[in-house]
Amino acid sequence: MSAPRDTATQHISYADLVVLLQQVFERHGTSPEVARVLAGNCASAERDGAHSHGVFRMPGYVSTLASGWVDGHAVPVVEDVAPGFVRVDAANGFAQPALAAARELLLEKVRSAGIAVLAIRNSHHFAALWPDVEPFAYEGLVALSVVNSMTCVVPHGAERPLFGTNPIAFAAPRAGADPIVFDLATSAMAHGDVQIAARQGEQLPAGVGVDREGRPTCDPKAILDGGALLPFGGHKGSALSMMVELLAAALTGGNFSFEFDWSRHPGAKTPWTGQLIIVIDPARSAGRDFAERSQTLVSQMHGVGLQRLPGDRRHQQRATSLAHGIELSVEAARQLRELAGY
Amino acid sequence: MSAPRDTATQHISYADLVVLLQQVFERHGTSPEVARVLAGNCASAERDGAHSHGVFRMPGYVSTLASGWVDGHAVPVVEDVAPGFVRVDAANGFAQPALAAARELLLEKVRSAGIAVLAIRNSHHFAALWPDVEPFAYEGLVALSVVNSMTCVVPHGAERPLFGTNPIAFAAPRAGADPIVFDLATSAMAHGDVQIAARQGEQLPAGVGVDREGRPTCDPKAILDGGALLPFGGHKGSALSMMVELLAAALTGGNFSFEFDWSRHPGAKTPWTGQLIIVIDPARSAGRDFAERSQTLVSQMHGVGLQRLPGDRRHQQRATSLAHGIELSVEAARQLRELAGY
Repeated sequence: MSAPRDTATQHISYADLVVLLQQVFERHGTSPEVARVLAGNCASAERDGAHSHGVFRMPGYVSTLASGWVDGHAVPVVEDVAPGFVRVDAANGFAQPALAAARELLLEKVRSAGIAVLAIRNSHHFAALWPDVEPFAYEGLVALSVVNSMTCVVPHGAERPLFGTNPIAFAAPRAGADPIVFDLATSAMAHGDVQIAARQGEQLPAGVGVDREGRPTCDPKAILDGGALLPFGGHKGSALSMMVELLAAALTGGNFSFEFDWSRHPGAKTPWTGQLIIVIDPARSAGRDFAERSQTLVSQMHGVGLQRLPGDRRHQQRATSLAHGIELSVEAARQLRELAGY
Repeated sequence: MSAPRDTATQHISYADLVVLLQQVFERHGTSPEVARVLAGNCASAERDGAHSHGVFRMPGYVSTLASGWVDGHAVPVVEDVAPGFVRVDAANGFAQPALAAARELLLEKVRSAGIAVLAIRNSHHFAALWPDVEPFAYEGLVALSVVNSMTCVVPHGAERPLFGTNPIAFAAPRAGADPIVFDLATSAMAHGDVQIAARQGEQLPAGVGVDREGRPTCDPKAILDGGALLPFGGHKGSALSMMVELLAAALTGGNFSFEFDWSRHPGAKTPWTGQLIIVIDPARSAGRDFAERSQTLVSQMHGVGLQRLPGDRRHQQRATSLAHGIELSVEAARQLRELAGY
């Protein structure tokens, strides 16, 4: 007996998934270097159970590359502008290769200045944000990143959408354990999760979005079809979303979420904006070792009854995936192989 | 005919209020320098209509100074640790004089490195956070600050309180207008606002807090009397509150919100923790002038129907107060003069 088709699954190793995704990227218009970075990013999300940013995104990548909206062969230009300030012109390419290109210089500056900022502009970000900050925590550093996206969130107190889902991600080392990592959309829900709910025919909780007339709705399709999301947490989430626009776009030289026009590129999916990453070296702090201190905080959080930290589920799923392979639906695996040209 | 006593008001100029508050501080145990900084801070909050951090706080300042919990004569020790990193040991004094002492060095570093961080530890913060960041915006800089406080917020998914109200404040310059400034508690409500509601016998909206048994309550007195607040925005606000603990305490060498014990200092009111301020020089950014860009964002926010920016009300009230004097209740003015020894 076989399981119903839509629940049949198979397992693939992380390394094999990276290779497969790399083939998809290269076949659809990226350089080998860009393919390597994006495949690692996307496979990591799938490995960690972050499905809305995993292989679910691949048709979107293919579509946006086919549209000519993003340059899959872009070579980022790194600019060393001050002892704590690095800029990158992503050259209308993806943000992750731009980060990769600037990473060593950024790390040097953090180690010498105690803090440094990386301002990426002219970039497309179509992935989760936590993979951009987590590696810094594994190097003992504290990292904060923001990226703006595309108009789909109504500022609190306004009538029509303006902001993107504008996530904030943070990572900090922890002694003897995986780092503390979170990645939160400043919208009430991440766009990818709305898309998944729409695909699965699920209703959303109240307060997530409005329809094309601006009326509250729980229907993800109404949100995607001319409607919009709301910020999380009312005026506070809205203020943070505004801050993300200022840091990720105004401070980098990138576009605001409402500034780009992709209407002449049907199939374009990736917001053409900017990204800011601030990295701090806690070795410059006074007092006890930072990673010991963050572990103390986590112990106390468990002590008051917290079951799970942000990021815990991802780290647990990662361990499972590395031990037993990444579980993909047979259909998803088939689509990936088709995209890869098998 | 006179108005009822509790609504009778009088006006006082900003300069006179500063002098009066300075007298209160000096009379109750601070150095002239500490009195100058704290009086300016508190008078500014009152001037801007931020009543929960205005003269309402003065009895708390007096009480905490009388308890011996905070050192009103502390002289902050500034440490220059890296091209982008300044530390200050506030020496068990208030955070604002520590910031004032380190400000010039911090500004030098921001101008040369493009970004710099100020890590204040061993400090007491009993004021609004926006006055700490707003002045940087008037110098054309972007500033972000966090401060942790005292255990009174239940982490999302936990059973008992651990975090402080842990505010985040942000300021950015805007061309031809007052800067963009916000200051938000990561709790569902600021502690000062709960105190004001309790004093005025008002009920709170649902979702703000729990009573001493951990049950949801709308009674501010039940929250203050052994109960606790909830984070704003569920797990997202809770993650941000955790981040504030890590940045303001672990990264500065200060206490977490749950670490200090003031039980031997009856009357102590001020959390003994830490504060972090990150300042960025947008002149290092690529592209157009930052302040012009932030003004573009604000115009677009108004264009989608936003009536009022965060901070707008404060700036309007400031203009009114500077033109006509600061309105105080007769009773509040009488109490202040009494505290000043008139």
